[in-house]
Amino acid sequence: MNALEELIGHLSRLPGIGRKSATRIAYYLLRSDSSLSANLSQSLLRTRERIHPCPNCGNYTEIDPCSVCADTTRDVSTICVVEQPQDVAVLEATREYRGLYHVLMGVISPIEGVGPKDLTVARLVERLRNPAVTELILATNPTVEGDTTALYLVKLFEGSHVKTSRLALGLPVGGDLEYADRLTIARSLRGRTTLSS
Amino acid sequence: MNALEELIGHLSRLPGIGRKSATRIAYYLLRSDSSLSANLSQSLLRTRERIHPCPNCGNYTEIDPCSVCADTTRDVSTICVVEQPQDVAVLEATREYRGLYHVLMGVISPIEGVGPKDLTVARLVERLRNPAVTELILATNPTVEGDTTALYLVKLFEGSHVKTSRLALGLPVGGDLEYADRLTIARSLRGRTTLSS
Repeated sequence: MNALEELIGHLSRLPGIGRKSATRIAYYLLRSDSSLSANLSQSLLRTRERIHPCPNCGNYTEIDPCSVCADTTRDVSTICVVEQPQDVAVLEATREYRGLYHVLMGVISPIEGVGPKDLTVARLVERLRNPAVTELILATNPTVEGDTTALYLVKLFEGSHVKTSRLALGLPVGGDLEYADRLTIARSLRGRTTLSS
Repeated sequence: MNALEELIGHLSRLPGIGRKSATRIAYYLLRSDSSLSANLSQSLLRTRERIHPCPNCGNYTEIDPCSVCADTTRDVSTICVVEQPQDVAVLEATREYRGLYHVLMGVISPIEGVGPKDLTVARLVERLRNPAVTELILATNPTVEGDTTALYLVKLFEGSHVKTSRLALGLPVGGDLEYADRLTIARSLRGRTTLSS
């Protein structure tokens, strides 16, 4: 197997990239200035070398603790629990949330054999010993696994000083009733907000 | 800018990969075994180091001349002219063609300021001095630029001992008349083949 076929093989292992896209990318890289390949190659190594989970919250970071945990202006009373590090980036992009995060690094899934012990639940329990924490926002995905995980955490912290909440379900902004699924519409009805009282 | 953002930036410069896909790939690489990033990184460098255009036909190769040019069982009387190295791979995959190739490394495009001098036309003229070559298949794309380039080459070799031909235009195999464009249908009518005579 030559170098080009090997590169196509490696590229097609990436998510969302099939053999055709991989081929297109490989030929593009050969056609382009060699600095493009060199920079990408170096960046791949550098990222794996420098980026690691924050020892406090589990978010990917270059420094310990991560920039969110280190930020003294953040509201330490609230911890938002998410499945993956990329969820932190998504929530941060909204500039809506000023509390801290906790990355579970997965979700409870009996089918895939993932239980609470495979997640960062023990570290979360430890963090909640801090009496300053008063609310836990369970921002796992609205899927069977995400709901199961949220329910598990609700039960786990039942009777503690911490209030738990879950992200609202409903229609996406700019969405269309016609294209929304029945479950989403049902949830948006149940969670309707009063305009005048 | 941290290493992760940098990697996302580099990935989103690849064709067909937007910012969202790049983010998804970067997080996937962080989550996966580090060998995935290491192998991809190395493969990128190796490909740029080893792969270069064949000095004879312009196809990408690791050895000089390329495996097609070096293959003594190939029919040296026919040269198939293509725009890009990836076109060679596409044609080879059909196992239909046993002649040689010539990669133009582009196409004549007055708008983009690409003329015959920017392509490997001079090398093609040189190759056609070999009296063994009797047919030139012009397999440039059926686009304005591809047609212009084919026409240019037809005129260039007019009066020489070489016969020129062009790939057939028509409906794609497994295609549907309903979804074919008018130009394609018109060409497939004009180029219809007789079933019984």
